[in-house]
Formats: sequence, C-alpha cells, structure tokens
Amino acid sequence: MKKIPDEIIECLKENQNFLILLHQKPDGDAIGSAIAMGKGLKQLNKSVDYYIEFPIEDKLLFFNEIKCFNQQLQENYDVILFMDCSTGEFAFSPEKMPKTKVKLVIDHHKSNAHYGDLNCIEITGATAEIVFRILRALDVTIDEEMADAIFTAISTDTGSFQFSNVTTDTHIIASELYKVKPSYAHLSKRLHSQKNMDQMKMTGAAIHSLEILDSMPIAFMVLDYDTITKFGGSINISDDVANVGQNTIGVDITALLKEVRPGEYRVSLRAKFPYDIHEIALKYGGGGHERAAGFNFTGDIELLKEDLMEVYKEQSEQYETV
Amino acid sequence: MKKIPDEIIECLKENQNFLILLHQKPDGDAIGSAIAMGKGLKQLNKSVDYYIEFPIEDKLLFFNEIKCFNQQLQENYDVILFMDCSTGEFAFSPEKMPKTKVKLVIDHHKSNAHYGDLNCIEITGATAEIVFRILRALDVTIDEEMADAIFTAISTDTGSFQFSNVTTDTHIIASELYKVKPSYAHLSKRLHSQKNMDQMKMTGAAIHSLEILDSMPIAFMVLDYDTITKFGGSINISDDVANVGQNTIGVDITALLKEVRPGEYRVSLRAKFPYDIHEIALKYGGGGHERAAGFNFTGDIELLKEDLMEVYKEQSEQYETV
Repeated sequence: MKKIPDEIIECLKENQNFLILLHQKPDGDAIGSAIAMGKGLKQLNKSVDYYIEFPIEDKLLFFNEIKCFNQQLQENYDVILFMDCSTGEFAFSPEKMPKTKVKLVIDHHKSNAHYGDLNCIEITGATAEIVFRILRALDVTIDEEMADAIFTAISTDTGSFQFSNVTTDTHIIASELYKVKPSYAHLSKRLHSQKNMDQMKMTGAAIHSLEILDSMPIAFMVLDYDTITKFGGSINISDDVANVGQNTIGVDITALLKEVRPGEYRVSLRAKFPYDIHEIALKYGGGGHERAAGFNFTGDIELLKEDLMEVYKEQSEQYETV
Repeated sequence: MKKIPDEIIECLKENQNFLILLHQKPDGDAIGSAIAMGKGLKQLNKSVDYYIEFPIEDKLLFFNEIKCFNQQLQENYDVILFMDCSTGEFAFSPEKMPKTKVKLVIDHHKSNAHYGDLNCIEITGATAEIVFRILRALDVTIDEEMADAIFTAISTDTGSFQFSNVTTDTHIIASELYKVKPSYAHLSKRLHSQKNMDQMKMTGAAIHSLEILDSMPIAFMVLDYDTITKFGGSINISDDVANVGQNTIGVDITALLKEVRPGEYRVSLRAKFPYDIHEIALKYGGGGHERAAGFNFTGDIELLKEDLMEVYKEQSEQYETV
C-alpha cells in the first residue's frame, strides 16, 4: 500500500481538537470515513466533534458513533477535517464556521479542488481506503465498529467491489478487515440487497412500464403520478430504478420519467459508452454529464421518444463510420 | 495464503495427460476453476481434455477456452481431475469412463466425500481459490483469461464478495488478480447486474404479485401460467425471483408459486434464521432443507397461506418463550 505523506500524519499527531465535516447528503463512504477517522483520533486521546447533515440513509443508521454527531461545537479547533468532499462549498458546514488553525482535506475525487491548507487527495475506490492507511500509519487499533465503517464505505462506493475504481489496494485493505471480523455477510446484505416494500413496489412498477423503443437499445420507463404518490419519497429511489433499464441486456440508453405533478415529469437519462445524452438534456433546459443527465418536461411523450431515437440514430451512425 | 500439500503439486507436476470433469449444471466456480486449471496445465506442456455438461449459462460463454471443451476423449489418462464436485456421482461423466492412474479431487464443499485417490479439499469461498494457490505453487503465469476465470469463479460463488464464505485469503487472491488486469468492472456487470428482458419482466411480475400475509413477515408471490409461458424458460430464474421476497425488509419467509400447468404449482419456500420451512414442504410431499425447500401443489391457495401463517406463529412463539 502507498505511503501517506509525513506532513499529514504529523498534523494529525500534533494537534488535539478536531472537527469533521462531510459533503451534503452524506453517503456510505462519507459516513464510514468520518466514523473510522473520528474513532481513530479518539483512541489517541484527541477531542473530536462531527457536524453532519441528516437524514442519513436507514441502512447506515446502525453505527453507535452516530450518537456523537452534531453535539455542541467549539468556537476554535486545531484542525477542521473535510472528508470525501471535492469542494469547500459542497461541504455541509455550520452557519457560523468555527475558527481553525488548519483545514485538512482527505478525499478520493479526481475533481477535488485542493482547497485545504493540507490536502491528502488520492484516486482510490473510496475515501475510507485513505483513512485505513492513515490509521495504520498512526498505529491505531481498528475495532469492529471501525472495520464495519471502512467496509461500509468501500462496499458502497465500489458497488460491492464491482466498479472500475477497485484496485489491488482495495482488496488488500478488505483482506485486513477480515482479520478484525470474520464475516461481513449481514452488513453486505444490509447495504446492497434489502429494499423496503415501497422501493420494491416502485421497482416493480418501473419494470412493468419498461418499453424498448422500436428495436433500438433504448429503454423507456414511466412512473405515473399515482405510483409516485403511493410508493415515492425514499431518498435514493431514482438511481435504483433507472438501473432497471441499464441492467437489461441490450439496452444502452435509458429514460426514466417520474410524473411529479399531474402532467409534469422529471426525466432521468442514462447512457453507456459511447452514447452521450447530455445534449438532449440541455435542449430541454436541463443538465448533467455525457452518461447521466436530467431535465423537467411537460408535453407530448411521443415526441420525446422520437427525439431520443433520433439521438441514438445519429450517434450510432457516427460510430459506425469511424 | 495456506500452502497446498506437496503430494498434490507433485501429482500435477509428474503426470502428463489430464481429463477435467465438473459437477452437473456447471456454475461460475466450476467453469472458472476448470479453465484456469486447464490453461495452467497446458502452459506446463501437459495435455488437457475437458468433459463438461452443456448448456452453460449465457453470462459464462465469453471464455475462448470453451472451444476446447468436449473434444475427442482418450481411453487412458494419467489423472482425472474432479473439480468443484462434492461426490463422484454428482460429476458429469462420459458414459464409458476412461481409465486413469489417479483420481484427483479439488473442491471447497464442506460435504465433500473425499472420493479421490488424492483429495485437495478446503473450505474456501470458491474452488478457484484453491486453483489459484495451486497455480502459484506450480509457478504458472496467470494470463488475462485465467484471471477472468478465477475472478468469475470467486465473484459468482461469493455473491460479489458478500457471502459468509469470504475470508482474508479471498481478498488477497482478488488483489493479485488486479495485478494481471486493472479492472473487472465489465465482467462484474456481466455476472451480477444484467438480466435479459424475460428475466426482468419475470422479476417485475413477481414484485407485482408480492403480498405480505396478514402483517406477518411472510411474502407470498404467484407467477401465473400466462406469465410463466410468456417469460419463462431461463435456467436460473427461480432463485432470482424468490430473492425478491427475501430481500424485502421485514420478510423472513417467502413462498413463490409458479403455475407450471394450469392449476398446478411448483412452490419454492425460503426462510431466514431461525425459521424452518422444511416440515411444511415434507407435509406437502416435497423436500429440501431448513431454509430452502419446495413441493408440487394443486389445491386451494388460501389454505396454503393459512398453513404458512400457522407455521410462522408456532415457530415465532417458540422462539419468544426461549
């Protein structure tokens, strides 16, 4: 495993009072990194506060350490730790930001703006991989809750060791976690398989509406207003449901329409390489990236379908002639 | 990583002609173990034949080495290798079994009957973990196809590193595979996420029919004859679909009814610890284990529901009073 720069380790060793901040809508990597880091620093007799946005997803609420989140903050800290957070603006922060001697950024996002006084930025599967290596360098003993936190972070940010961000180090760290606890089977099930009844029924409704446009590799799904009001509300439902289309063999482009008010749709588009659905989202006044974009839509759904088919035809011809 | 016994390594080094056999209906671990082992032996200039049952699941058909399966067999081999196969009877074998000097069994099943002249049996996540360690001991260079084969085997038999059979060694081996190839993201998607349209629609139909019995943690699903004939036929559909129930938060017992002929049902039952649905399957003339059982059923579905609720009530009271 790669070595953590000495100045980062020195900063953590030499200081006493820490505040941990995460990005807005914290995910498994953010929460897991915060807990492992926070408990590690406490083991070294440091004082640690957390300031973290709620709600936290149900599946992450099992950590005992969460009861230490968002207690009375101090006016001054030695170090404010920005974790898993690509810019300072994206951090969830107190309205009146406490003073600090050092802003330390620990993150794995390529796009990180290096906005700290000290920056520990590496392109890893999860920020928690960096945290694990920091804890090792600090000679911290990783207890079961910290192991669960690091596992949760890695497992969620790598899609259970499936995404292209997994490296040799990811698995070496996982192998070390199995020396702390012999099984992460229950935790994995909690993180990846289980859905509540509403999420399950929403997925079913999406599959039921799944339509392939004119033999093209385009999946088109509509969740109508009735379905949304009956089963909607859960935080991460749209990603899950858009995946229904993208996980169907032969599909390269997915459009998911959610009827948020009668006749008004929120459209999520997904594309696989080399297709680019960014332009069509811009045309309808939305935004996003090449492979994931969205926009609000009122109008004739049949025309939207035709637009999508047109985009596919243009782009597929372009790639055929290369 | 644990050492492979010398006698196993000697047997592979000293002999020249090998036949590889697998269990019936070979899965990812069987196919992956066979390919990695077969290609490893060929690298050492051994002669290797494979005798393997078809069909092989679509998702596994991408290996080039499959074109070497089931060619003309010899009458005599030095070694017949039984891989991932808990008993000799469970092996898919030629009608007229070739003669051999040595039967060598390589397997990870607890229930293995040690039916070989030499047995290399260890309780690992996948048989391919043992194969990896054998190949290392033989100083074989693992090429990309062999790495894909071992990854496929481990990834499928551990549910993408989620099951309780994963150990420190599983992740150490995975970390080594990332030194051969930098990403297994496409392969993981192929193995775990993608469903064909029929499988997707069948899952949707199962979710649509999903019913919770009288506020108890029992999921009841019926795939009617129309749905079965429209979308049925794929090999592994029942496990996938029964998981719809078991993956719903709050569900401990799932009954999936497939109407295989009008009015005739194949019932699959699943239970989570500590529930036992074996007895009810026996009562209806079926069989299985505590947590997974099945039977054929014609009759009043409402009575079956009542029986299931009765089983739950009895068992839950029993556990409450302990």
